Amino acid sequence: MISRAVVQTEDIGDNVEIMEFAVIREGVRIGNHVIIHPFVVIESGVVIGDNVEIFPGSYIGKVPKGAALARKPDYHKHIEIQANCSIGPNAVIYYDVQIGENTLIGDGASIRERCRIGSNCILSRYVTVNYATTVGNGTKIMDSTHITGKCSIGDNVFISICVGSTNDNAIGKLGYQEARIKGPTIEDGVAVGAGAMLMPGITIHENAIVGAGSVVTKDVPTRAVVMGSPATIKRYI
Amino acid sequence: MISRAVVQTEDIGDNVEIMEFAVIREGVRIGNHVIIHPFVVIESGVVIGDNVEIFPGSYIGKVPKGAALARKPDYHKHIEIQANCSIGPNAVIYYDVQIGENTLIGDGASIRERCRIGSNCILSRYVTVNYATTVGNGTKIMDSTHITGKCSIGDNVFISICVGSTNDNAIGKLGYQEARIKGPTIEDGVAVGAGAMLMPGITIHENAIVGAGSVVTKDVPTRAVVMGSPATIKRYI
Amino acid sequence: MISRAVVQTEDIGDNVEIMEFAVIREGVRIGNHVIIHPFVVIESGVVIGDNVEIFPGSYIGKVPKGAALARKPDYHKHIEIQANCSIGPNAVIYYDVQIGENTLIGDGASIRERCRIGSNCILSRYVTVNYATTVGNGTKIMDSTHITGKCSIGDNVFISICVGSTNDNAIGKLGYQEARIKGPTIEDGVAVGAGAMLMPGITIHENAIVGAGSVVTKDVPTRAVVMGSPATIKRYI
Repeated sequence: MISRAVVQTEDIGDNVEIMEFAVIREGVRIGNHVIIHPFVVIESGVVIGDNVEIFPGSYIGKVPKGAALARKPDYHKHIEIQANCSIGPNAVIYYDVQIGENTLIGDGASIRERCRIGSNCILSRYVTVNYATTVGNGTKIMDSTHITGKCSIGDNVFISICVGSTNDNAIGKLGYQEARIKGPTIEDGVAVGAGAMLMPGITIHENAIVGAGSVVTKDVPTRAVVMGSPATIKRYI
Repeated sequence: MISRAVVQTEDIGDNVEIMEFAVIREGVRIGNHVIIHPFVVIESGVVIGDNVEIFPGSYIGKVPKGAALARKPDYHKHIEIQANCSIGPNAVIYYDVQIGENTLIGDGASIRERCRIGSNCILSRYVTVNYATTVGNGTKIMDSTHITGKCSIGDNVFISICVGSTNDNAIGKLGYQEARIKGPTIEDGVAVGAGAMLMPGITIHENAIVGAGSVVTKDVPTRAVVMGSPATIKRYI
Repeated sequence: MISRAVVQTEDIGDNVEIMEFAVIREGVRIGNHVIIHPFVVIESGVVIGDNVEIFPGSYIGKVPKGAALARKPDYHKHIEIQANCSIGPNAVIYYDVQIGENTLIGDGASIRERCRIGSNCILSRYVTVNYATTVGNGTKIMDSTHITGKCSIGDNVFISICVGSTNDNAIGKLGYQEARIKGPTIEDGVAVGAGAMLMPGITIHENAIVGAGSVVTKDVPTRAVVMGSPATIKRYI
């Protein structure tokens, strides 16, 4: 059923439902059994896999803006959302993002340019991911957590709610210098507790656990359990 | 005035204003003096009380999605929003939610399935409430706070901004086991300060106060004032 | 190009692009070279400067609601967004707000009534600003940070992600008393680290630095570096 929507592409699979007031620009490719709710905008250059559902108000294909920005955004006008994904209401996906199969993007989650998100992930409600960050497979990032730019997150990582991460030790005092900027590296199997803050450039090694409310200021060894502000090693698992 | 909207129900009260590009599905019941702004979607099975105002971009009646989820969502396709409520722009209300009279749901607030919210409450901007949580009457939950699933919150509670709460002591390491999952119990008259993190299964007893930035790892007695990480009792009021 | 939009004003400059399903009420003034995406609502009394771009789902001109609110909102039905601003998808601008030139408002950022935001600022994704707050020029406020009501923020301030601020020492226990409510004063050149919580009425003096995860309970001197919970002075810069 296509009704009152603006559909400017013909590259649409079988059994696709595009609801009222959706806007789909030319050059968009849509697979089979896709459901697109009202008030969704999909810009040119976006590829949507089979069985994807896109909820109301989601905006797919945002151009990063330069106004007042320290750096000039660098990106390709392409997005790939693979099969069986769910894109929540009011989610925002910037250009140059790839999202693997079976991944759930929560309400209002916002993913900046040049990010690569794996398969079987959850990025929950109001998660914000900054530019050029990679997330592995089977990783879960819970509500209202912020993932900084130039961050690397492995497979089967669990990051709880209200977690923050940063990529600039100068807290913005030195302006933007690309070479100095580096987010955390979070290896496979790590768990990060609620409200933890992760400082720039640190590595949290495999299967480590970061306690709730910790401020992690240096590297965390494999299987270490760290807590506190600044976080210190309490034991190993 | 009904203009350019998609209105598939006839069960609409007197003096209702449905603005352009709203989408209202069949089986929706709308009371008297209701205002529905543009770009609102209301799915079947939703009942809207008298004098409710629903702001642009709000989505009422979201089906919980199973993609990559640990558990299969369980819910009825019903929502009741009682008289005099205000539902903010881009708010998302999942199925099987009840919201009492005179309650204000802020911009982008998102309430998951099987929640019961009382009357005279404020759930402010970007508050996220997870599944099967109850909130009493006269309770205020401030901006960007996350309320976990299976949490119980009493009457006249004040929860400040950027507060987090959790329901899984294993930080996601054991997968989802329904019996092990339990959010905090927050009794009547409790106040929780900004940025506090509340750990799974704890009880914060009546009229206790949790200081800003605290990590609450165990039960808090009635009228105790706790602070720190982990939070300890500083005094009683 | 005007197509399928609802445009009730004629006060529109040259080379303006209003996309499908935008709603622009009478009395709105739009400058030259403005781009308005689908699903934007602009209410009466809003003035948009030259070269402004407004992304999908943004709502400009929200009336503050009184339901369950402690105080009665006080505002003029006027908004001014000056030249070269970018208003992100799903952003919400309440009535009686002024935003200076070249300022970027991020996805879902929400600015309450009686706020004055300077030029060359960034208010990033899901930043919430409460009522009657002023922000100077060249100031950056990062993702998911909450700025409280009656707060004063200077020029060239950097506030990192997930920062909270409050204006009521009674944590809501005394109800709303206008005279008692006061947010922090953050002077020029201050930097506030990720996840810091700023308590009511404090002043952070010029060029001070607040470490990540700090809870700031008292005034911070000029050029002091404070950390911890409660934050204490570690050194001066």
